[in-house]
Amino acid sequence: MKKLIVASTSTVHGSAYLEYILPTLAEFFNGVKSIVFIPYARPGGITYDEYTSIANKAFSKIDIKVKGVHEYENAKEAIREAEGIFTGGGNTFELINQVYKNDIFSDLKEVVENGTPYFGTSAGSNLCGVTMMNTNDMPIVYPPSFKTLEFIPFNINAHYLDPNPDSTHMGETRETRIKEYHVFNSISVLGLREGSWLEVTGDSIILRGPHTARLFQQNKEALELTSNKDIKEYF
Amino acid sequence: MKKLIVASTSTVHGSAYLEYILPTLAEFFNGVKSIVFIPYARPGGITYDEYTSIANKAFSKIDIKVKGVHEYENAKEAIREAEGIFTGGGNTFELINQVYKNDIFSDLKEVVENGTPYFGTSAGSNLCGVTMMNTNDMPIVYPPSFKTLEFIPFNINAHYLDPNPDSTHMGETRETRIKEYHVFNSISVLGLREGSWLEVTGDSIILRGPHTARLFQQNKEALELTSNKDIKEYF
Repeated sequence: MKKLIVASTSTVHGSAYLEYILPTLAEFFNGVKSIVFIPYARPGGITYDEYTSIANKAFSKIDIKVKGVHEYENAKEAIREAEGIFTGGGNTFELINQVYKNDIFSDLKEVVENGTPYFGTSAGSNLCGVTMMNTNDMPIVYPPSFKTLEFIPFNINAHYLDPNPDSTHMGETRETRIKEYHVFNSISVLGLREGSWLEVTGDSIILRGPHTARLFQQNKEALELTSNKDIKEYF
Repeated sequence: MKKLIVASTSTVHGSAYLEYILPTLAEFFNGVKSIVFIPYARPGGITYDEYTSIANKAFSKIDIKVKGVHEYENAKEAIREAEGIFTGGGNTFELINQVYKNDIFSDLKEVVENGTPYFGTSAGSNLCGVTMMNTNDMPIVYPPSFKTLEFIPFNINAHYLDPNPDSTHMGETRETRIKEYHVFNSISVLGLREGSWLEVTGDSIILRGPHTARLFQQNKEALELTSNKDIKEYF
């Protein structure tokens, strides 16, 4: 049975990396001794080793060892044999590019569908949707496809930001961008605010954290979904 | 000889569409009676007709007729025979997607290199760079390539926004995103603030408008470039 934590962000303002979600992760990864980390999104362009060491430091607080997928001779085998998987944030274009390049797309899909617990933050959460078409990231590399793993039947907009009524900036708001997306696409989008996450268990999808989440559906008014409720009925 | 206006935005806060730049356009398009408008970027998902009518209304104030490229039976011919060309903003992924789909890439490249005056705003300015890899837009469609027309030897980041020191949002700043881009790419990026534009005449590239522009080069500190100066020496 599928088991995922799909988080908007790794870090909330004023606290350490993963700190806000560590109690949740301790429970989620209960019994897991080590996880495989996918560092491909490279936030700020840091190396895979540097990124893995940041993840390792955070997970050491809940007694879980973290090893980067790049440290294994065979990335496919690493995924297939993982006790648990964590994909960190950064640039979604580069993340998905490397997932294809390292040929782990189908392995990830299979093991997570079959129950390997998966934790994603930001870009790592975008990877759980149907496509990466609602990322906020810059297209710094050209991936072979925008198709993602479809662990959930909709797309994520991570770090969702409400329009600022005082802004004089003429660039599009997040809501405008998602509405433009729905001119061309029918798949729903969930705007996950920082500090929110989804707890996916089989078909159940429960919104967690302090905020509501904003659901965008094609040709419908956007809705605010309440925390601590199963939201699967909307999809 | 190449002749372009490459603007960050169509609209500055508190004024009408193109209003701030109309005096410049009157001079730039001096002698031109009608221009071909490329509405492919579809801001907010509006139709080509709606978008063309907005452009037409603005240009009517300087006695220039605007006809959408979609109104011609043959888009390639429309571009080849245009007295002037204007590409409006919206979504850069969809813009470049349609430029390829309608097979006008090489026609645009050729006529503008040969002197057909070209005006771009936002996505229409991104089209002037080497690639569209520094767009802020959401990847709502998957284009066949990120390669753009290379009228200038660098990329544009339109609507450039300085980091907000008071922000508690954990999403990446514009500067962070561009630095990530330079981990993977060597082409320079010019952050054009709203209200700024480039006046390109042959090899000369003069920054115009009230702001400095921020130049990002691989493995170098970012620089602020001064308005009303030729900036070609940086590329």
